[in-house]
Amino acid sequence: MTSVTIALDAMGGDHGPSVIVPAAIRILKQAPELRLILVGDQQVLREVLQLQITQESERLIIHHASQKVEMDESPSHALRTKKDSSMRVAINLVKEGQAQACVSAGNTGALVATARFVLKTLSGIDRPAIIFALPTVKKDFNVRVLDLGANVDCTPEHLFQFAVMGSVLVSAVEDIPRPTVGLLNVGEEDIKGNEQVKKAAQLLTASVKTINYIGNVEGDDIYKGVADVVVCDGFVGNAMLKASEGLARMIMQYIKEAFQRNWLTYLSGLAAMRVLKSVKNRVDPARYNGASLIGLRGTVIKSHGGADTDAFANAIQQAMLEVEKDIPQRIRHQVAELLEKRPLT
Amino acid sequence: MTSVTIALDAMGGDHGPSVIVPAAIRILKQAPELRLILVGDQQVLREVLQLQITQESERLIIHHASQKVEMDESPSHALRTKKDSSMRVAINLVKEGQAQACVSAGNTGALVATARFVLKTLSGIDRPAIIFALPTVKKDFNVRVLDLGANVDCTPEHLFQFAVMGSVLVSAVEDIPRPTVGLLNVGEEDIKGNEQVKKAAQLLTASVKTINYIGNVEGDDIYKGVADVVVCDGFVGNAMLKASEGLARMIMQYIKEAFQRNWLTYLSGLAAMRVLKSVKNRVDPARYNGASLIGLRGTVIKSHGGADTDAFANAIQQAMLEVEKDIPQRIRHQVAELLEKRPLT
Repeated sequence: MTSVTIALDAMGGDHGPSVIVPAAIRILKQAPELRLILVGDQQVLREVLQLQITQESERLIIHHASQKVEMDESPSHALRTKKDSSMRVAINLVKEGQAQACVSAGNTGALVATARFVLKTLSGIDRPAIIFALPTVKKDFNVRVLDLGANVDCTPEHLFQFAVMGSVLVSAVEDIPRPTVGLLNVGEEDIKGNEQVKKAAQLLTASVKTINYIGNVEGDDIYKGVADVVVCDGFVGNAMLKASEGLARMIMQYIKEAFQRNWLTYLSGLAAMRVLKSVKNRVDPARYNGASLIGLRGTVIKSHGGADTDAFANAIQQAMLEVEKDIPQRIRHQVAELLEKRPLT
Repeated sequence: MTSVTIALDAMGGDHGPSVIVPAAIRILKQAPELRLILVGDQQVLREVLQLQITQESERLIIHHASQKVEMDESPSHALRTKKDSSMRVAINLVKEGQAQACVSAGNTGALVATARFVLKTLSGIDRPAIIFALPTVKKDFNVRVLDLGANVDCTPEHLFQFAVMGSVLVSAVEDIPRPTVGLLNVGEEDIKGNEQVKKAAQLLTASVKTINYIGNVEGDDIYKGVADVVVCDGFVGNAMLKASEGLARMIMQYIKEAFQRNWLTYLSGLAAMRVLKSVKNRVDPARYNGASLIGLRGTVIKSHGGADTDAFANAIQQAMLEVEKDIPQRIRHQVAELLEKRPLT
């Protein structure tokens, strides 16, 4: 296998280097063909490396960046004033070909704006989207949902382009020739929905020869696994994804409380613990960490801001997978091909 | 206690009279002060009553309606052509004062449109909204979320009015003088969100003296119980609520599968079953069935379309509670008062 180089925004996320550096070290042990570039404050990163009893090497390089994008900073402010931020420099490394992908747990809005500004979108694609794989009731079947928050004001044309990109990604990653695509709506019937979704449905219906559009799907259909790809506006997708995270956490909390009620429930909990642990792992957001920014001329992976070491390590693995599968290149070709076949509307 | 009369759209929902009639009979046994009017096809309803070894009485009245609104019918079609539908007639009974509330598991869009047309909205309120109580990690603390699907194209002003109505409802039902209100967004910071939400935030900020507006909340904050009321567009709310239902069902399915893996896990499952059952009940949508259509000059409760007998019975109880607390009247007064104090913007 050829060597892969990935740039990490080492200052991003809620925990910064204290989570990102250990995650990097762990992955390097598992993947001998991997090189990682830690982008961020040189001094801070050296100190964290020392704490981990590690130092810079051929495979773990520090690339200094003097600034940091704050989690609550506006994307336009970051773009204008943080030209030497760890986030921007990590993306620059992808642009310049020094890294094949970058991973950031930083401010989502700033990451999308910066990646779009530096890398540019693919021909025919107006905006990048965030796509993420979610578990379903079907064994070993994940559904990809996009957009999960890159675009909070979408036009029907944007939703159409998300469908194209999602379809191509699943086709490339899962080797499914014609992945099914559903449009998130408030009902299955064609008459349902807001103006944005109704118009997007028209665009998709006109392109069924190239996109395997199956019509409207509802919120609960996502976890039923009725489609390979579910398309929605980034505001809706983000609210839904975060609500799902909150609900999963609440249910696990309820289970814990229920088993702690008295010594009898506690004993039955001991017996059931291993089994419940397996369920928790199956829905654990950490396992699914690593959303792709799709539609760009380069691979950018967005980690959850609150990611721990396990979760950030998963995001790095996600980046490796996309590089190995040559996703941006495949998407570029297939998007161009799909858009060419598009009927005039 | 004075007698309460509630009209039931007996033909609505996925299961119609086969679920609604037994639910009605069960509630009548529990509530001696209650009268129920079953609205729908006389012959069908008599047959179902016979199957239940019951007949019409002083407290269980059949009111004939010759039509039925289909689940996939467009609201405008239902409004125009179904003037004698079980749904419309049940709402008419509220309008005419023959019933104090009505409950329907039918087509949501048609119910909202018909209720709005027949009952009219309160002065100062443009559109009714669907409000629903969801469980949170906090013990005995539910969060009310609106709108959950009555309005799929909302203006900032609509979101503002939802905040007013939600605040007044919680204040009336829970006896909280100044309930906290959060605005669902993709981030906590003021700069986040789409245009609709940013403008709604401005309207709410200008009214903090009358509405206890606490700013943006995110999807996961809903189940954390950070606010008494969470306001969102009906499209977002509906997608989120249904995704939550789907996810809860998926987790319960995972738990079942995990315990059935082998005889050892099966045995530990037997021990844990009672405890897990209590958790399931705590997140069971049936327990939370019965969303209110708020903002109307009358009480209309929307049951889940797929409600079973338990769930539909809960929706009837929800209607009884709102009648007893005289919610529409209290909302009318308080909304008027709140809107009067509203600063000029």
